[in-house]
Amino acid sequence: MKGVPQPTLQRLVVYYRYLKKLAEMDEEKVVCSKKMGEDVGTSSAQVRKDLSYFGEFGCKGVGYEISTLMRCLERILGVNKRWKVVLVGAGNLGRALVNYQGFNRLGIEIVEAFDNDLDKIGNRVGALAVKNDKEMEIIIRKNNIKLAILAVPGEDAQQVARRLVAAGIRAIWNFAPEMLRLPADIHVYDENLAISLVTLIYKLNQDISSDSVKYIG
Amino acid sequence: MKGVPQPTLQRLVVYYRYLKKLAEMDEEKVVCSKKMGEDVGTSSAQVRKDLSYFGEFGCKGVGYEISTLMRCLERILGVNKRWKVVLVGAGNLGRALVNYQGFNRLGIEIVEAFDNDLDKIGNRVGALAVKNDKEMEIIIRKNNIKLAILAVPGEDAQQVARRLVAAGIRAIWNFAPEMLRLPADIHVYDENLAISLVTLIYKLNQDISSDSVKYIG
Repeated sequence: MKGVPQPTLQRLVVYYRYLKKLAEMDEEKVVCSKKMGEDVGTSSAQVRKDLSYFGEFGCKGVGYEISTLMRCLERILGVNKRWKVVLVGAGNLGRALVNYQGFNRLGIEIVEAFDNDLDKIGNRVGALAVKNDKEMEIIIRKNNIKLAILAVPGEDAQQVARRLVAAGIRAIWNFAPEMLRLPADIHVYDENLAISLVTLIYKLNQDISSDSVKYIG
Repeated sequence: MKGVPQPTLQRLVVYYRYLKKLAEMDEEKVVCSKKMGEDVGTSSAQVRKDLSYFGEFGCKGVGYEISTLMRCLERILGVNKRWKVVLVGAGNLGRALVNYQGFNRLGIEIVEAFDNDLDKIGNRVGALAVKNDKEMEIIIRKNNIKLAILAVPGEDAQQVARRLVAAGIRAIWNFAPEMLRLPADIHVYDENLAISLVTLIYKLNQDISSDSVKYIG
């Protein structure tokens, strides 16, 4: 399962959320790949291909049993477990992430928030009180936390990331616009918000170039 | 150029930012695909393949002239122009986006912020004062703005998106965890923050499953 491409993985999360919604609506017990594809914005062939990485699901001509497929995806993605996450950096972005509704539904809980800014330490962020980042290592080790969100300024990112890894963190969701240099066995996901926006701009720019009359003036 | 895959597009943004850094350092005039790949975390073959979508760059055995390739990528991505963007939803996430340093460097400027919450209207967000969303349509039309960031609660997203499109918006960066139903010629980028985190959890879970002795206890 090491070889699952990133886009497949991302679609699995989309399928999982979709199935969860279907299960909550409790109208159908079964869904076919065609309907699934249409509802999430991909093809039925793509749905079948994505699921085929993980074995055989569903019956030909019948479809997938919603609750079974949902449980399978839960196990595949690892969201059948509860995951504790620490946040470092309690600025606007950090606060937005703590308050983001989508995590809890997936069994993900941000359990601590740290900052080195004395003006922020002690402040409430959602249900958390921001702690001094000097306590970071001790708390991560004591609670055996493996996952961290890094939302600190770019110039602090590398140094904070090294401290996190030394404390036992194995996976970092990095919002700083910096490439982190860490041991190869540490998983890093660089969230580059500018990339999302530029891919939209690229498409918009294509439209404008191919249809300039419509837009100029 | 319509057929450029999303991952290629995303890497182009990474290459562009990398070249910009090199240009600022002003040490080398030329960079080869091998160094580029190593520095941004991909292979030289991938670099060459990504660039080949857009024609011939660089000289065999010499490399790419940094300033030339940078200007080309600028034009390809559309960031040689200035882009005005409106933000709808001035919560924590909206505030984080307005203050995000990475946009301005790419010629992207968030020029207005709107909300329907009377407690937020009039507040400052970065250099902006939050405006009543009732003024949204008029301001978008008057300034001929094509790009919007949607950072409103999920239940409001669809309705606000329709209003944006009616006012002339052609591309929406959607942070609401909702699938928007809009005309096919409107570009939508669904930013699903949970997906990033789950892909990390998936990898972490793989490690733990394959090496459980190390982690249990």
